[in-house]
Amino acid sequence: MPRSGADARRRLREAALELYRERGFDRTTAAEIAARAGVNERTFFRHFPDKREVLFDGETELRDALLRTIVELPREMGVFAVLLAAFRKSARTLADNRPFAEPRWRVIAATPALRERELAKHAALAEVVAEALRRRGVGDGVASLAARTGWAAYQHAVQAWLDNPGESLDAQLTRAFDDLCALAARPDTLETAASD
Amino acid sequence: MPRSGADARRRLREAALELYRERGFDRTTAAEIAARAGVNERTFFRHFPDKREVLFDGETELRDALLRTIVELPREMGVFAVLLAAFRKSARTLADNRPFAEPRWRVIAATPALRERELAKHAALAEVVAEALRRRGVGDGVASLAARTGWAAYQHAVQAWLDNPGESLDAQLTRAFDDLCALAARPDTLETAASD
Repeated sequence: MPRSGADARRRLREAALELYRERGFDRTTAAEIAARAGVNERTFFRHFPDKREVLFDGETELRDALLRTIVELPREMGVFAVLLAAFRKSARTLADNRPFAEPRWRVIAATPALRERELAKHAALAEVVAEALRRRGVGDGVASLAARTGWAAYQHAVQAWLDNPGESLDAQLTRAFDDLCALAARPDTLETAASD
Repeated sequence: MPRSGADARRRLREAALELYRERGFDRTTAAEIAARAGVNERTFFRHFPDKREVLFDGETELRDALLRTIVELPREMGVFAVLLAAFRKSARTLADNRPFAEPRWRVIAATPALRERELAKHAALAEVVAEALRRRGVGDGVASLAARTGWAAYQHAVQAWLDNPGESLDAQLTRAFDDLCALAARPDTLETAASD
C-alpha cells in the first residue's frame, strides 16, 4: 500500500477511536469518521467494510505473524513454550502502542457490538494458532486444546497489562504462563475431582 | 413459572431451532417461530427479548448452578479440580440433551450473529467462574486466569463431544483437564521460551 493509503488508514483508526470515546460507537457514522480523518466517506469504505472493523485493523498481519512464528520455532520446544514465545513476539507491537491500545480496549469493553466482534476475532485467531500447532506435528485434539487455553492465558495477560500500567506486557505474559503451569502442576489438582 | 409457561418456552426453543435449520436464522421471524410453536408473537416476546436469545435459554440457571457448585466444593480441592468437578456437574444437563444440543451447535456455528452472541455469553460465564473462585479465597489474578483457561478447556471438551458422538461429554471433560495438566507439567515447557 502506498504511503498515502497507510496514512489515511491510520488517521481513520485514530479518528474512529476519538469519536467512539466522545459520542459512543452507536452515535458515530462512517461519514463522521471520514470527515474527522480528513478523507471522504468512499475512502473509509475502501479501507474498512464497516465501522466495527476500523478498530480491528492489523488482524491479518497478526494472524500471519503468529502462524509463521509458531511453525518456525525450534522443533524441540514444548507446546506452551512455543505459544509463549509466539505471543511474546506478537505482543511487542501492542506494547509499543499502549496510547492507542488502552482507550481502544475501553471503548470495546463498553460497547457490546464491538465486544462481540472482538470475541469472534479472537476465536478465529485461536483456530489459526491450533492449525499452526498441527503443522508442527501436534495431534489434532491437543493442538486445539493448547490453542484455546494458551489464547485464554494470552488474553488474561493483555487484560492484566491494561489494568496495571506499571508492569510490562512481556512480564504479564510470562507470569500468566508460569501461573498456568503452576495451577496445572499441583498433584492434587485433578485427583479430588476424579473421586467426587 | 406455571407448567404452561415452561411448555410454551420449550416449544418456542424447539420451533426456533427447526426454523433456523430449515430456512436459516436471517430468514426467520419471531412471528414465524411463535406460529410454529402454537403461540402468538406477544408470548414469544414475553419469554425472549429477541430471536438470538431463544437459543440461549437456561443461561441464568447454568450461571447460578456453576457459582453455587464452585463456592460449595470442599476447601482442600485445587483450583482446576474445582473447575473440573463443577463443569462435570453442569455438563450433565447438556449431555442428557444431545438431540437439541447438537443441531443447536450447528446452527450457531453457521450463523455469525449467533456465534458472536454465544462467545459473549461464554465470556460472561467465565467471569462468573472467576468471581466464584475469588469467593473461595483464590487470588484475584489467578482466579481470572484459571477461569479463562478452565473455561477454554471446557469448551474444547464440548466441541470434541459434539464432533465425536461415540464418547461421553464427561470423558471428554476429564481428558481435556488431564491433557491441559500434561501440557503444563512438562518441565521444558517454558524454559526454552524464557531463553529465546
